[in-house]
Amino acid sequence: MEVLIDHAHCERKAAGSAVQMMFRYLCEPGLGEALSPLAREELEHFEQVLALIKARGRYLEPLPSPGYGAELAKHIRKVEPLRMLDSFLVAGLIEARSHERMALLAEHSPDPDLRELYGGLLLSEARHFGLYWTLAESRWPREVISQRLAELAIYESQALQGQLVDPDDVRMHSVGIQFEM
Amino acid sequence: MEVLIDHAHCERKAAGSAVQMMFRYLCEPGLGEALSPLAREELEHFEQVLALIKARGRYLEPLPSPGYGAELAKHIRKVEPLRMLDSFLVAGLIEARSHERMALLAEHSPDPDLRELYGGLLLSEARHFGLYWTLAESRWPREVISQRLAELAIYESQALQGQLVDPDDVRMHSVGIQFEM
Repeated sequence: MEVLIDHAHCERKAAGSAVQMMFRYLCEPGLGEALSPLAREELEHFEQVLALIKARGRYLEPLPSPGYGAELAKHIRKVEPLRMLDSFLVAGLIEARSHERMALLAEHSPDPDLRELYGGLLLSEARHFGLYWTLAESRWPREVISQRLAELAIYESQALQGQLVDPDDVRMHSVGIQFEM
Repeated sequence: MEVLIDHAHCERKAAGSAVQMMFRYLCEPGLGEALSPLAREELEHFEQVLALIKARGRYLEPLPSPGYGAELAKHIRKVEPLRMLDSFLVAGLIEARSHERMALLAEHSPDPDLRELYGGLLLSEARHFGLYWTLAESRWPREVISQRLAELAIYESQALQGQLVDPDDVRMHSVGIQFEM
């Protein structure tokens, strides 16, 4: 159950960060029309997960942030246009990691509702990584992007390693994803 | 044309403020499932308006804020739960005013594309006012809401009166909406 609540928070944060990027780079051609549908899709997922949480008699509850996203965001460089590139790549990495975790849940969760939910969400999560990659690729040379992505991926693995693995604290973005719900 | 760019900004701001309220009152039952679809709808309108702007060879451009929303937001009380009530009512007032302006554009714009666009958006703008009203009504007695709405409506009319009416500065939320585009 905590996985669902954590997941609802992930979807709303993903929507929030797409909206935030859209606001920050408002007049950057090609951005609004890419990020607005992405934010809508994340909100739709949020609603789906929330409906399932409610069907099980619970609601959103505050969860202390697992720190993963915040840890990654620290590596976004402060100066434009590097900040934009890093923002795309960090958002893309988070989507890619969500996709990986959802694939595990879609296949191995003992709960049929969750297998169905995550099976349904998988495709769009994969598309979202592609979308952030394309936004980067239309603005920077591929080798610049690949090199920076490799650096950020190292920071990401450090951020995951650094997490305390508490088996009672099940998160979408943690080292030891659990299947008991 | 400036009306379209201004309108695109209004839709994204409306989406942003729905998402912001959703984040602020995350665990308040009934809020996420109401505000998330509303934010999605505003984003969809944003995309429609942006497509029309692009079809006419322009893109989003920064526009100095007309000050209307900021002026109204000053009257949101700082202490909860009054802040929540006022946030709903201010958002509802802005939606109601947008509906009024879009109805004028749907009927009187000399531009057939704009008449069609605004005709299509009218119904949902009317629904949005109702949605914020319902959110308030399920939490406060009707007379408390009506009285506060009446007070805010006075501040709103002062905010509109206080605007400089520059015929070259056409806005969705200004005293003198213009039809020359």
